[in-house]
Amino acid sequence: MPSRVIAGTALHTPTRGRFEALEDVLILVDAIGRISEILPRDHPRFAEIKAQAERQGNLTELQEGQFLLPGLVDLHIHAPQWPQLGKALDAPLEVWLQRYTFPLESRYADLSFAREVYSALVETLLANGTTTAVYFATIHLEASLALAEICLAKGQRAFVGKVAMDDARQCPDFYRDASASTAVNETRAFIQSVRDRAGEEDPLVHPIITPRFIPSCTDALLEGLGKLAEETGCLVQTHCSASDWESNFVQERFGATDTAVLSQFGLLRENTILAHSNFVTDEDLALIRQKGAAIAHCPLSNFYFANAVFPLRAALDKCVRVGLGSDISAGHSPSVLDGCRHALLASRARHSGIDPHLPPEERGLAGSTISVAEAFWLATVGGGEALGLPIGKFAPGFKFDALVMDLNAHGSNINWLPDLDTIEDVFQKLVLNATRSNIVMTWVNGAVVARSSAAQMRDDQAKQ
Amino acid sequence: MPSRVIAGTALHTPTRGRFEALEDVLILVDAIGRISEILPRDHPRFAEIKAQAERQGNLTELQEGQFLLPGLVDLHIHAPQWPQLGKALDAPLEVWLQRYTFPLESRYADLSFAREVYSALVETLLANGTTTAVYFATIHLEASLALAEICLAKGQRAFVGKVAMDDARQCPDFYRDASASTAVNETRAFIQSVRDRAGEEDPLVHPIITPRFIPSCTDALLEGLGKLAEETGCLVQTHCSASDWESNFVQERFGATDTAVLSQFGLLRENTILAHSNFVTDEDLALIRQKGAAIAHCPLSNFYFANAVFPLRAALDKCVRVGLGSDISAGHSPSVLDGCRHALLASRARHSGIDPHLPPEERGLAGSTISVAEAFWLATVGGGEALGLPIGKFAPGFKFDALVMDLNAHGSNINWLPDLDTIEDVFQKLVLNATRSNIVMTWVNGAVVARSSAAQMRDDQAKQ
Ligand SMILES: [Zn+2]
Ligand SMILES: [Zn+2]
Repeated sequence: MPSRVIAGTALHTPTRGRFEALEDVLILVDAIGRISEILPRDHPRFAEIKAQAERQGNLTELQEGQFLLPGLVDLHIHAPQWPQLGKALDAPLEVWLQRYTFPLESRYADLSFAREVYSALVETLLANGTTTAVYFATIHLEASLALAEICLAKGQRAFVGKVAMDDARQCPDFYRDASASTAVNETRAFIQSVRDRAGEEDPLVHPIITPRFIPSCTDALLEGLGKLAEETGCLVQTHCSASDWESNFVQERFGATDTAVLSQFGLLRENTILAHSNFVTDEDLALIRQKGAAIAHCPLSNFYFANAVFPLRAALDKCVRVGLGSDISAGHSPSVLDGCRHALLASRARHSGIDPHLPPEERGLAGSTISVAEAFWLATVGGGEALGLPIGKFAPGFKFDALVMDLNAHGSNINWLPDLDTIEDVFQKLVLNATRSNIVMTWVNGAVVARSSAAQMRDDQAKQ
Repeated sequence: MPSRVIAGTALHTPTRGRFEALEDVLILVDAIGRISEILPRDHPRFAEIKAQAERQGNLTELQEGQFLLPGLVDLHIHAPQWPQLGKALDAPLEVWLQRYTFPLESRYADLSFAREVYSALVETLLANGTTTAVYFATIHLEASLALAEICLAKGQRAFVGKVAMDDARQCPDFYRDASASTAVNETRAFIQSVRDRAGEEDPLVHPIITPRFIPSCTDALLEGLGKLAEETGCLVQTHCSASDWESNFVQERFGATDTAVLSQFGLLRENTILAHSNFVTDEDLALIRQKGAAIAHCPLSNFYFANAVFPLRAALDKCVRVGLGSDISAGHSPSVLDGCRHALLASRARHSGIDPHLPPEERGLAGSTISVAEAFWLATVGGGEALGLPIGKFAPGFKFDALVMDLNAHGSNINWLPDLDTIEDVFQKLVLNATRSNIVMTWVNGAVVARSSAAQMRDDQAKQ
């Protein structure tokens, strides 16, 4: 017996670059939020199961103009930076970090400030369709735990990391771990506390080991966190080869690339999430693939801070795991659909180049483009594979993390002409034009975790 | 006596790159929609005028969390392409034009189809804050007139062009003007009809002479339209040096650049709007400036179809008039705020370059970036100067075209912390993060022409 049945048309990209419409299906979801079966319209038990679910009050039927999309996976979010989303981006990276970001992050010693910001953030992300979020929190144990608790309470699938950063040469006095051993011990305590809260079996929220990036960590810290990953089996996230400065710094300190150094310290593991990785070499990509690690491509923040464009096409062609990250707040949008759009733009810029005064063949790196379906795959299945979770598409055994998209929602910018648009056109319009207004309902693990303000207001009116 | 008084804080960029906050002012608007005076808080008659306006029911007072922005100017929109917004962008330009765009545009022979699409488009643009729109319609006289009528009826400031395209070698049989003389005569008739409808004095809607682009027009048509511009004093718009193919085509046909050819045909005039202009030379820029023409920079569609990045910084530094265009539907967003964001990204891509394997100094064109305030200036004052209209900022003599932005609107993605955010931070958050949901009211020429769905629903509730 399914605990929930959803009737409607679901759109997804089950394999990279391949769009598929599951038209007028029944999706059966079990008690632990997993899709148990998907019945096509001509299935012999279709009518019976639908009628039964309706009788039992377990049926959710999509309306005309509504379509299901898989929930979106955001592989890279700095939760404490939410208050500065969209400001100070004219400043160079160094100023942005030292004058704005580190002082802001240091405020999360204040737990009530943390709770207020993190609640607003998680609600906003769910409303924007982010059903799985991978968070950097701050160095503060309690505030980081608060973020994990808020994700659990609001029903967002999440990985939450207490940030580790101890190197006095790179981290400000007012915002760094007291020592490598403190940072390792607090991370261990954090892992245990999150696991205690989220439960043993199929937890919705996971801890994740989070060295900020190599320049902010001493060798002792990197080594300690590598051992902790081995000891606990906990996933790892960090920044990797993000910019000229950062890559050069690591080369000078270790005579090796970020990827190689992370590997040496035991931090390049299955499902390690490497943010950015813009300056990875071909050998780095091969090593990332071999270890089963994954890249969080953050195209929006890259335009601001990367000094170049990530070789996405090359990474995909080498079958490296890649998903998308909003990189809040170096990226100024909380929407992973915006992330799809920015990934397309970055791939186009890389393909075409930038200087009209050069001959076309010297301008860009031809063959770098991705398709709309590939962009959406990155935002869903790509993110799921990066994390090793059964999420991102509609298939038996996968979690029912999904969005009800409404083309006719109040405030929609989508112009839908059923006579002129194929189902694939609808999909492309959703990927390129949908806004938060079109996301009328967000499901995580088989439960509704957000409803749009327009939908809420209709409910409120109905109640009056 | 003002016919309307608005009390609140207005944010704008009165000169390029300079942000200014007019905090807690009274803006007095006269009977023809013009700002007559702006009173600072300490003005001796502030309280008296505000009280008087309130007594007379002429006061609009902004609420906590609300700010005025100038209305947005979109210099380049293909109105008939609205139904295909967000689709078919994976296709190369030639396929996009021949398989999708021309067949779609040819449908506007059907006037009722045209009315339906154009009504939806104008409403959507007003809701997204576009108070002035410069439209390409189609070759159809009646449907193009319908667009002008809809702009008048809905209160959008607009320039509307019946498209002229007669060259059988480039235009499909099913969609082109019958001859150069037909196209010129119909354009003349169109100009007269729009002027009849919009009135002589200070019209809200203007006709604009619209050769599609040089490759689609015969010499006779270009010459005829140049003479018509001189004869009628009507503005001109066209595409200019948009891509490798297009620039090379014009070079081969005329042995000159687009800009030079347009000038020879009398089409490069004061306030001629040149869409794209990605491949202009320094001489072209000098000529554009000398003639007082202007460039509609369309960064989003450029990523898809331009083969390079427009030299925006160079154009600005040479004091060429530049504003922004959404380029619907080669651009997939109807929002000029999105246009600001994309202009920033394009400038960043041009600055940084794209290939991480090159040394930084060989990668990009350093010094190409623009600031958030410059991007917003392009979207407002820049657009106004391009068109020669007193719009885009809050100053006596300027039209009151304005947006009420609400940081606390339902469905907002902006996280506003009054303690942490300066007034300039608020401005940057609006430019980088505001969505249609934040635009609760749109004013054109002193009249309210759109209200957000959330605001409407609150009204509806209040009425019950
Ligand atoms: Zn980051
Ligand atoms: Zn165009």
